[in-house]
Amino acid sequence: MSVDVTITDAFWERYTKIIRNEMIPFQWDVLHDKADIVIDKERDADYIPSEKSHAIENLKIAAGKKEGHHYGWLFQDSDVYKWLESAANSYALNPDAELLDMMDEVVSLIVDAQEDDGYLSTYYQIEAPELRFRRLFESHELYCAGHLIEASVAHYKATGSDKLIEVSEKFVKCIKENFGSEEGKINGADGHQEIELALIKLYEVTGKKEYVDLSQWFLEIRGVDPDFYTKQVQENIEKGLSEGPLPRIDTTYLQAHKPVFEQEEPVGHAVRLVYMAAAMAEVASIHEDDNMFQAAQRLWNGIIKKRYYITGGIGSTVHGEAFTFDYDLPNDTMYCETCASIGLLFFARSMLNNHIDVEYAEVIERTLYNTIISGMALDGKHFFYVNPLEVNPKASRKDPGKSHVKPSRPSWFGCACCPPNIARTLTSLNNYVTSVKNNNIYIHLFTDFEGDFDINGHSIHLSQITELKDLGRTTLAVEGVKEETIIYIRLPEWGSSFSFSKETTIKDGYAEYSIKEDDSLVIEFDIPVLMWESHPLVRDNRGKVALQRGPFVYCLEEEDNSSHLHLSTLLEKPKAQSIEDEKLGEFVGLKGKGKKLVINQSWGNKLYQVDAKDTFEEIDLTFIPYHLWANRSVGEMIVWVNREEGM
Amino acid sequence: MSVDVTITDAFWERYTKIIRNEMIPFQWDVLHDKADIVIDKERDADYIPSEKSHAIENLKIAAGKKEGHHYGWLFQDSDVYKWLESAANSYALNPDAELLDMMDEVVSLIVDAQEDDGYLSTYYQIEAPELRFRRLFESHELYCAGHLIEASVAHYKATGSDKLIEVSEKFVKCIKENFGSEEGKINGADGHQEIELALIKLYEVTGKKEYVDLSQWFLEIRGVDPDFYTKQVQENIEKGLSEGPLPRIDTTYLQAHKPVFEQEEPVGHAVRLVYMAAAMAEVASIHEDDNMFQAAQRLWNGIIKKRYYITGGIGSTVHGEAFTFDYDLPNDTMYCETCASIGLLFFARSMLNNHIDVEYAEVIERTLYNTIISGMALDGKHFFYVNPLEVNPKASRKDPGKSHVKPSRPSWFGCACCPPNIARTLTSLNNYVTSVKNNNIYIHLFTDFEGDFDINGHSIHLSQITELKDLGRTTLAVEGVKEETIIYIRLPEWGSSFSFSKETTIKDGYAEYSIKEDDSLVIEFDIPVLMWESHPLVRDNRGKVALQRGPFVYCLEEEDNSSHLHLSTLLEKPKAQSIEDEKLGEFVGLKGKGKKLVINQSWGNKLYQVDAKDTFEEIDLTFIPYHLWANRSVGEMIVWVNREEGM
Repeated sequence: MSVDVTITDAFWERYTKIIRNEMIPFQWDVLHDKADIVIDKERDADYIPSEKSHAIENLKIAAGKKEGHHYGWLFQDSDVYKWLESAANSYALNPDAELLDMMDEVVSLIVDAQEDDGYLSTYYQIEAPELRFRRLFESHELYCAGHLIEASVAHYKATGSDKLIEVSEKFVKCIKENFGSEEGKINGADGHQEIELALIKLYEVTGKKEYVDLSQWFLEIRGVDPDFYTKQVQENIEKGLSEGPLPRIDTTYLQAHKPVFEQEEPVGHAVRLVYMAAAMAEVASIHEDDNMFQAAQRLWNGIIKKRYYITGGIGSTVHGEAFTFDYDLPNDTMYCETCASIGLLFFARSMLNNHIDVEYAEVIERTLYNTIISGMALDGKHFFYVNPLEVNPKASRKDPGKSHVKPSRPSWFGCACCPPNIARTLTSLNNYVTSVKNNNIYIHLFTDFEGDFDINGHSIHLSQITELKDLGRTTLAVEGVKEETIIYIRLPEWGSSFSFSKETTIKDGYAEYSIKEDDSLVIEFDIPVLMWESHPLVRDNRGKVALQRGPFVYCLEEEDNSSHLHLSTLLEKPKAQSIEDEKLGEFVGLKGKGKKLVINQSWGNKLYQVDAKDTFEEIDLTFIPYHLWANRSVGEMIVWVNREEGM
Repeated sequence: MSVDVTITDAFWERYTKIIRNEMIPFQWDVLHDKADIVIDKERDADYIPSEKSHAIENLKIAAGKKEGHHYGWLFQDSDVYKWLESAANSYALNPDAELLDMMDEVVSLIVDAQEDDGYLSTYYQIEAPELRFRRLFESHELYCAGHLIEASVAHYKATGSDKLIEVSEKFVKCIKENFGSEEGKINGADGHQEIELALIKLYEVTGKKEYVDLSQWFLEIRGVDPDFYTKQVQENIEKGLSEGPLPRIDTTYLQAHKPVFEQEEPVGHAVRLVYMAAAMAEVASIHEDDNMFQAAQRLWNGIIKKRYYITGGIGSTVHGEAFTFDYDLPNDTMYCETCASIGLLFFARSMLNNHIDVEYAEVIERTLYNTIISGMALDGKHFFYVNPLEVNPKASRKDPGKSHVKPSRPSWFGCACCPPNIARTLTSLNNYVTSVKNNNIYIHLFTDFEGDFDINGHSIHLSQITELKDLGRTTLAVEGVKEETIIYIRLPEWGSSFSFSKETTIKDGYAEYSIKEDDSLVIEFDIPVLMWESHPLVRDNRGKVALQRGPFVYCLEEEDNSSHLHLSTLLEKPKAQSIEDEKLGEFVGLKGKGKKLVINQSWGNKLYQVDAKDTFEEIDLTFIPYHLWANRSVGEMIVWVNREEGM
């Protein structure tokens, strides 16, 4: 069952071009410490390393080509692997010799840095070989292995070279020799889930089921002994390998407080949770393991029904970059890390492999068109780690509790996980557009693509052209049909009044289009402006609405609406209007009438006033798609806007 | 010019009795590690010492009566000094032998713990004598000296014994030998202001102007060299007295980033700032130093016009327990430390010494009747460090960014500055009721008192009886009048329709009552319910009101109004109603109609909904005085409540 999809949509081509032409060369320079930039800390904290990347240098030192010390986080290597993955993905879209040379250089370096026994983690190789696999709560050794594996799979798919796959398989062999339930082996998983996902990809290209089994083993050992990590460190201290005192390890942060089957509530570090859940769903699908699927579904519901931002963001607090509690979705202190939404995208995709549910597809779309692409500037050289729903630049500067909420995208971060993660994700979007299940084809996204689907031994070609201007219109042409074929096209929640040029049946959010020969289908629909309200228990959104049109959530920026956005109230449902902006390009904006509370003269020098007479002025409000914010100037931004009661 | 005021008001007698009968013995047990309590951390942080107090034990070890190590903060001694000050104040109100014995024990211990050269700071005596006065950014040595001096003054006033005054003067002598502008002396001040205030009190009982001069010197040297603290530590490292690396010292936190005359904006740790500003106002008043007064007034305006909570709280963030920026007054993450409002009370009192302005008196009242007494439970054995304006107990438990916002008062804290600070303050309220300026008497507070005032050599006796039930009524009897005497009675902003039994003139917020012989005056007035609005730039209070009646700000508690208080909207101005509660006693509550957003069935399992139909139910809202909250059950609380627009 092979599927080969190519996205041909101008919207996404803009991003893949920026990535190829700007982001990949820029990140190359950063990783080689050649970029003339200031590296920002993702929040105010002395311990964040922000002098340089040093990631390539670390590999050179580990490979014996340079002298020196490791610099940066324990997971600094993963920046290189993710860069390589995005370069490979980009090469697969548009091969070019320069990119191949750059990749070759990195691949050779990785080959040279690997130990004879397969081990590879520059920090431990350079600074602490005696602590190999001995501080798993923080070491990120298998996390980095995971990103190495993912890079090797992408590199193989793009170039056909298995040079890096060999490195990966050699590393996995080393890991299997060290980890397992057998006496004397390490009976636990890495503090940061990632290898679990990567092993599935390695299985997909090698066909070796042992990798799926290993992934499942890592998932199932997790949290079985909640003291596992502490015992590891305790043993190091006893053996004189490291010094005390014992760190206080928060196993909830690592989702290792109980077995995954018992984890009802999404807690802890958001990226880790969704990487884990995505792997759970993958394993469930391959092994047809309903217990594992149900466990993944519980986590899914815990996120999507209770802890999920309208922009597709997750993680309500900077403390531990973590989930907090149900309906706690603050707009101005949240985390909403770009990587967490990318992980949620993976999770949604993996859930679709088990079972088609329009909710999974909606989450793919919402994360992708909002938080994930908000993570990069249109110049390809500035990135958000945190994607807020409300920003006051003064608060970001002056309130230490908001130091993580940046009002503009920095060039790079001390912890640089997000920038290359965006690059590798946006260059592999073809994986998110369609599914094949029981020989039926499902189309999840309204985006232009061409695709070849191997269905029952026939190759069926799909071509989708979409238009989302005043009206929505999608034209789907199907070729190569030899027998009855069913194509399901998702009817998104943001469309209405769907009309079809051919007979279809609507079923669970998808239009069922059954054909026996080559055919084409045109679907036309309205794209109304949606005014979302939050569940009443979401305290921060009381009396407020968020606007959406098409897949895009909208926001108000100071640039278009002047400052003190919190004083604005929406009086009517805004109307879509095409906007052509020098910096942002062409997009559909929303314009509507509002009123603004005036700071009238009665206030004088007063901070409080009894029976103040509120006065308002009429204003025009202009909303832009959320992902475009902070590309023009530094200013306020809000997604959730006050609305006139009863409007 | 002597003034001798005794408060006779039942409202305050309730507190002084709780302090004498419950709080002082309880705190005695805690300081002696004899209380059966759990000590809470003021926020989640591993470094906060919370096993025990050990404060008396530290003194015993320093005195050579015990062996052992110092435990607790560098300023642990101050807990004992503040306890002693409150015991002395309480003894002055109602002498009793038991209390005298307890004080004697502590005084003897302090005498024994003092070094021959006058030095006294148990941490440095026990653990690091080589670092005496060498780490002033954090050592709190002069902070503790200040509290020792304040205790000695209170002890002397209460008992007539100068045993502790001798200790204080000996310590100040030691300090003068070590600090000063002369070559070889330390040319800087303590990181935590306090001695500056204390030296004024020592001057008041000894008449020695040198203490005022020393206070002024500490104020004026502050911030002259912003690198002073770093240089001290650098020198220690160079001399091998301590190890590196150099800590990053945030001089803004300490208000040592520039000279006090150049500090326009209130920044940094709120308690430090107001202690400093209070001393500035004291020095300005004694030395008739207008420059210093203007500098204090600038800080005053910076707080009161821009960074001041309706409850009299200050400090908008837990990070550094600090001010943030203008109009940034979040209700659920603020600090509003009890000690900071106590310091603001000192500051307001000191400003009145320079110049009578009703605004200073209003701040005395607002801090006192709201945040300061909110700092203690009615059992005298539980205390707030942080005084929030909005609490959701689930958020306090599950959002690490709110771990400092306790939904109930703990017994004690790792950093126990607040509990004894409340005790010493509420037992010395007689200092805040009146002023004498240019031989005129000013009455600032509506509370029952008896007072003797030495005016132009005559002793004038005032007796004030107040009533604040349905109507306000105050009766002021004046005796001993020999020549024209002017008494100014503050007409509080929360009263209206004032009527006077005798001729008075209203002037700058005070009723001017001029008499030539003994007389009495009755003032009657209405006490309307006030609905305060915040300046529109206070983002968190948009669309909300806070209620006040008399000096009391009100709040909604879950106990009276069920949960999800944020869903309630006030529909009318509530009415005052006398309430008799088993736990809270008798007080005036406020009752009014409201509506509550219903979580209707349309929500089902949804987190967001398009065009949701809001439905409301009518509810009765019951408000209680803010200071009484959290005395019945653990639940939600809000001060700023939604109000119907245009109400």
